[in-house]
Order: sequence, then structure tokens, then C-alpha cells
Amino acid sequence: MRMYDIIEKKRDGNVLSFDELKYFIDGYCSGEIPDYQASALLMAAFIKGLNRVETADLTIIMADSGDKIDLSSIPGIKVDKHSTGGVGDKTTLVVAPIVAACGVPVAKMSGRGLGHTGGTIDKLESIPGFRTSLGMDEFLANVKEIGLSIACQTGNLAPADKKLYALRDVTATVNNTSLIASSIMSKKLASGADSIVLDVKTGSGAFMKTFEDSAALARTMIEIGESLGRRTSALITDMNMPLGNAVGNSLEVIEAIDTLKGKGPEDLKRLCIELAARMLEGAGKGSYEKCIEMVEQCIFDGSALRKFSELIKRQNGNHEVIECYKIFGESMYVYEYRAPCDGFIESIKTDSLGIVSMILGAGRENKESQIDYTAGLILKKKTYDKVNKGDLVTKLYTNNKDSISKAVEILESSINFSNDKPIARPLILAYMDSLGVKRFV
Amino acid sequence: MRMYDIIEKKRDGNVLSFDELKYFIDGYCSGEIPDYQASALLMAAFIKGLNRVETADLTIIMADSGDKIDLSSIPGIKVDKHSTGGVGDKTTLVVAPIVAACGVPVAKMSGRGLGHTGGTIDKLESIPGFRTSLGMDEFLANVKEIGLSIACQTGNLAPADKKLYALRDVTATVNNTSLIASSIMSKKLASGADSIVLDVKTGSGAFMKTFEDSAALARTMIEIGESLGRRTSALITDMNMPLGNAVGNSLEVIEAIDTLKGKGPEDLKRLCIELAARMLEGAGKGSYEKCIEMVEQCIFDGSALRKFSELIKRQNGNHEVIECYKIFGESMYVYEYRAPCDGFIESIKTDSLGIVSMILGAGRENKESQIDYTAGLILKKKTYDKVNKGDLVTKLYTNNKDSISKAVEILESSINFSNDKPIARPLILAYMDSLGVKRFV
Repeated sequence: MRMYDIIEKKRDGNVLSFDELKYFIDGYCSGEIPDYQASALLMAAFIKGLNRVETADLTIIMADSGDKIDLSSIPGIKVDKHSTGGVGDKTTLVVAPIVAACGVPVAKMSGRGLGHTGGTIDKLESIPGFRTSLGMDEFLANVKEIGLSIACQTGNLAPADKKLYALRDVTATVNNTSLIASSIMSKKLASGADSIVLDVKTGSGAFMKTFEDSAALARTMIEIGESLGRRTSALITDMNMPLGNAVGNSLEVIEAIDTLKGKGPEDLKRLCIELAARMLEGAGKGSYEKCIEMVEQCIFDGSALRKFSELIKRQNGNHEVIECYKIFGESMYVYEYRAPCDGFIESIKTDSLGIVSMILGAGRENKESQIDYTAGLILKKKTYDKVNKGDLVTKLYTNNKDSISKAVEILESSINFSNDKPIARPLILAYMDSLGVKRFV
Repeated sequence: MRMYDIIEKKRDGNVLSFDELKYFIDGYCSGEIPDYQASALLMAAFIKGLNRVETADLTIIMADSGDKIDLSSIPGIKVDKHSTGGVGDKTTLVVAPIVAACGVPVAKMSGRGLGHTGGTIDKLESIPGFRTSLGMDEFLANVKEIGLSIACQTGNLAPADKKLYALRDVTATVNNTSLIASSIMSKKLASGADSIVLDVKTGSGAFMKTFEDSAALARTMIEIGESLGRRTSALITDMNMPLGNAVGNSLEVIEAIDTLKGKGPEDLKRLCIELAARMLEGAGKGSYEKCIEMVEQCIFDGSALRKFSELIKRQNGNHEVIECYKIFGESMYVYEYRAPCDGFIESIKTDSLGIVSMILGAGRENKESQIDYTAGLILKKKTYDKVNKGDLVTKLYTNNKDSISKAVEILESSINFSNDKPIARPLILAYMDSLGVKRFV
């Protein structure tokens, strides 16, 4: 087999076999196939496409390229969730305790923030003492004993995807449905869950800007998961504004705790209930309606909140944060952005708000950046809300005074006001599984 | 400007500007743009295509990337020819002296053999003493004094093309009309001629296997040449069998001399007359019909042969070879391949005959290989010829006895016989210039 022939075959729009894809991935990981041949193949695959079988093959080959987490010692159906990422997305912090409280084990590997905002691991680390670097034995023991663990992804999970992604990132070959789907699903497969619920974001703050692109990505990931024996479903959800009101690490943990207490912002609560119910459904806990009831019950009776407290204790965090938010500490500087006019908020450039929070200290500008856990922003008004001139719209938090003027400048250009009441777009746009699509719009 | 954006633009099928192409070529040559980004762009360009303007822009940028030969000190219209390469193509050896003998200066830079057979430079070097490595002053002085010089291409002519071609060669991005055309034409432009005649080969022994592909390549090169002020025309010629009967360095020089003497094989003679006439026409020497007459006259009166003799003397070769072929030396081993049956030669796998000649010693297996100048083969029968069992079909010449069995094995599988008389295909399939196509089939 020769890499040249594989490139030529895909260039001409032909289908690559499992063996050809494996030859490419193995050779690329071992360094025998150089970057320039890999990038030529990636560009050909980007333009000519990969079919269902090729995409599933690529996924399993990448999943097999490194360590795989073996959850077989944990009884029951293990479920996982994945969000394609958005600003203010703290659903894992709410959903994982709910699902565990309902008796379904959650063994969750999460990442640090890659984009502008912190990842789930960064958010959890804003809880004083919370440990996320767990050995595999400790991770599995936690899941066995309390039904829940959230740990920092190990370095060797799907290393082929990691290497390939770095190349795609500099050769304009990221934004292709098959390549994105196989990248996400390879990590999910290596993480060992039996059933996967995907939250595919769509809109200005998401990777996929249109419903159609998001649905195509969801469909591809469902096909991959199902073809490899994993029950897979997806919600397509709106990311034209941040999820919830808080953006920033400890600010988001506080909002997640509020949500587990039954308070929290409506949109966040709604999405967390939906995701948790779909995860329970995926674990065979009954009909969708029954699963919704179970989720609502475990928030109402406090068992989900207690599960989160257990998680914090188990991973050495200070669980008193649940009752006393002051333990997180507070930012030294607070800036209040007020409405410059009467009217409605017509739109928010959501990804710009991610940049604002990064500038304030909540995200990493580069790999070496230190995160300021208390930094970030709280939206007091969101898209579609009516405002009067002078109303408080956004509060910015930071320990770096110099960052404020730049942050405010971007914030001001990110929020658009109008005189007419905008037409609201629903949060959850569709539910998809192997049987089809259910649209809510 | 960022290379990433340029790749993305071409990936999405958009047109690149002159400045973007220049940014790419300059950055790639300086080493600032890495191979993996260049290969991603090349693959995108291969699949999405380059339009006329992009192709011409790329050509001129590559032509400008290194030295350019300045022929302005030589009076008159300087003409050049280029063949896309085939087995047994020794036309330059015949055509260049004819054109020079008709009073049109020929300053020809040629290459060594890249494929299986020797290049024009290798063939000339089979003449004892012949020097091809000339300084620029000597090269120009020869053209001024005898109207003709043929020298080995300097290292720094269109270096961007050289670097890009090496990358295309390992990333399956060679065989694209725009990329081939800009590669060829960048070298022609850097070589400084005012008018260019192209011989685009088509068939089993050529790079382009079909008439349509060859015509598209010719059209693209004509467009590039004309858009940059060079009068450019092309012949599309058959390469389903070797040109002439000889394949191998001194064997081909001998055949070229025979042709200049008015003997030589009919197909070679015919194509040389056509090419020479088109070159004279391109130099403004009159109508096509008048140019044909001039060419035939200078063969008939011996002036073309005398010009070749002058060239040899001028470049330190032994011009006595023209009357005494024994000076070339002779191969130690001769093998006669005879017809295994009665019938007709239906087809010849022309590129396989190139491999046969390489195995015998006439070409380079790798850069370091030494050429055996007397090695090669002579076809006594060619496609469409009637043969009786036992007739001599091919004579093989070599100084390496061990090569014969392998060469014969390939030769046997390269020549197909049939009972029915095959339908002959003409040698010259079309003439093309900026005004259109004239097909002869």
C-alpha cells in the first residue's frame, strides 16, 4: 500500500477502504507518513467527502489509536454526553449529578477550555481543593461508589485525532461534517460509554452557524454511534446567545448549583432537564415522559444537589461552596454595562462575549495562560428582552483592571438594540435519533 | 495576508488574486510557508481548478522566481519549442538546426532525462566531446554567431516550479491541466523566447492519455503564452507508439542525422517538418505553406545538416560522427526479438518500451545512474505493420548482458499482435493556436 495511491483515490472521489484509512492513520501517527501527504489527503477528503462507512471506519481507527477506558466493571448502562461547545455552557455540571442521582452511572472525561472560555474541568477547578487529575483506578472506584466521577481527559485518548486536528487547524480542513463527527465520536468511543447524548449547538456562538449544518453533523454522529453499537441521540440547540446568564468559571459553577436547587435561569434549566431525560432514556430508564418526571423529581427533592455535593467531597473539593458562594472568592473589579437607549435587545454576538470573558481573565489566550476563576460576566438582560435606557445589561468581573476598557469596547459592539420586539427563537430546535428528526420550530 | 485564508478561499472554489498567489509562491520558496500548507492548497487547486487568469498569474510568478534569460541582444524573433515528452522523441535535434538554417535564431535550454529515457542533453552528450554546460555569455555568443545553441538548463530557472513540482510529485497533484501548463510555461517564459511551438503528446506513451486532455492542456498553454505576449501554437501528436524507430541516446542521434539527410523514418520526418514550419511561421517568416517549402528546401540542399555540424563543432563535439556513425561506439550485446506469429502489430505499450530502454542502460533508474549512450532499441516493425512469424521486430542493444532477459520479458508483453489489420491513427491529430483548433482526424 502507498500513501500516494490513497491520496489519488480520494482526490478522484473514490471510497477508501478500512485498510487504507488504517494505513494512513497508523503511518501518520508513527511519523512514517509526512504532514504534507496527510494534509493533501485531508483536503481531498474535505472537498470530495467521506461516506458513512468511511466516516465510521475513520472514527473507530482513531478511537483505537490510544488508550481506551474500560467501563465493563461498572454494572449497568453507562451514558455520556457531549456538547459541541458554546458560551456559558455549564450543562455537564447540572446534568451529570441529576443522571447519577437517578441511578445511572456517569463516568465523564472532560477537557479544559480550548476556545475562549474555560472547559468543564476549569470550571470544577474553581471549587477550592477540587481534584480533576485522577488515576484510572480512582476514577472507576468513584463511579462504582457514588455513581459519578468527572476527570480530566488523559493525554492518550484518541491521540490520532489530536495529531490530525492540529494539522487540520492550520490547513483549513476543520469545518467538514465527517471530519468533525469522527473527531468527536472517536473520543466518545475511547471513553467507553454505552449510550451517548449529543448537544449540537447552532448559531452565532457555535461552530455550526445554521440549523442545516448542525443537523447534518448530528445525523453523521448518530450514524457513527449506532453503527458501532452505541445508542446515540442528539438535541440541536440554539447558541445565538449564551446559555444561562453567567460566563466565567466560578460564576458558572454558582449558576449550576442554583439550577440544581431548582432556581437558575429558565433556558439553562430547560436544556439540562431535556439532556438528563434523554440520557436516562438512553440508559433504558423508561419513556421520555417518565424520564422527564424522574429528572424533575430529583431536582425537587434535593437528591441531584446532594449528588453534586458528594462529587465535590469525593474529589477533595470544599463542598461548603454549595451553601456559601463567598468561598469562591470575588473579583476585585466590577463594571456595570447599562443600556444606551430604550428598546429591545435584538441580537448578541455570542462568540464575542466569549472573547470578552477571555479578556477579563476567564479563558486562556494561549496554552500557558493562567485562568482567573472569578472573572467573567453576568447577563442581566438577554436577547429579546425589553430594556429602558440606563438599565443594567451586563456585569463584568475581573482582577485585571487594565482589561476592562478593551472588554467593554467589544461588549458594546456585541449587543445590538432595536425599537421593534424581535421574534424569539426557541432554545431547543430539534431532537434526533436513529429513527429520525423531531423539529420544534 | 495569511496562508490559512488563501487555502480556505481556494478550498471553497473562489478565485485567488495575483497578490495571494505571489504571497504563496514567495513564502513557499523562502521556507516561511510549510509543505503541509502548500500541499493542502495544491490539492484544493487541483480539485477546484484555477481559472485562466489564476493560471497565467501563477505562471508569471514562477517564471519570475529565479533567473531569466535575456535574449534581447540577439536580433530577430527568437523561437522555442517544447515537447511534453514521449518515447523516441528526438525532434529537437532535427528541428533546431532546420530553423536556424532558415535564419531564425534558436537559443534552446534543454533538460536531462527525468523519466525512463534520456533527454535532449543526454542525447547530445553521446556525441564524443559535446559540451552542454555553457556559461550564459558563451550560450548567447553561439546564438549570435551561428544562430543556434543547445545548453543544459541552469539550476535557477523557475526554482519555484522545481520546488512545487517535487511536492506535487508526492501528493498526487501533478496531473492537473492548469498546474502542468503553468509549470511548463514558467520555464519557457524564463527562457526568454518571443514565440513558442508546443508539441503535446497524446496516447499510451504520453502523460495525457486522451485527445481531449491533451487539447485542454494545449489550449491552456496557448492562453498563458498569448496573454503574456508570446505567440504560441501547438501540435497534438500521437504517442501510441515511439516516434521514429530508435530509442536510446546515440541511436536517436544517428536517426536524427539520417532525418537531416532526408532519409530517416517517415513519421519523424513528417513531425519535424511540421514543427519547424510552425516555428518559422511563429517567427514571421511567412505563410504556413511557404514555411513548409523553406524547411523542405534546407533539408534538400543540406544546409540543415551543415547547421547541425556547425553546432557540434561549436560545442566541442566531434562533427565527424555525421559521416561516420561508428565513432559513437557500439553496444557489446545485440538481441533480436522476432515475431512469434503471423499477423499485424495491433498496439505497442509505448511507456513500457521506455522502461525496456532504461533497463538496457539508456535511461536513469535514479539520479545517480550512469547512462550507457549506445544502449537502446530499434523498432524494425511498428504498430499497424504486417509481420510473418520469425520476422525481426525489435533489436535490443546493451553493454549489460544481465539486463537482456528482463528487457525481453517486458518487451514481449508490450507488443500485441492481431489477425486483423488495425485501423491506423494519424501522427498529427490537430494544430491549435489562439484562433482555434484544426483537427486532422
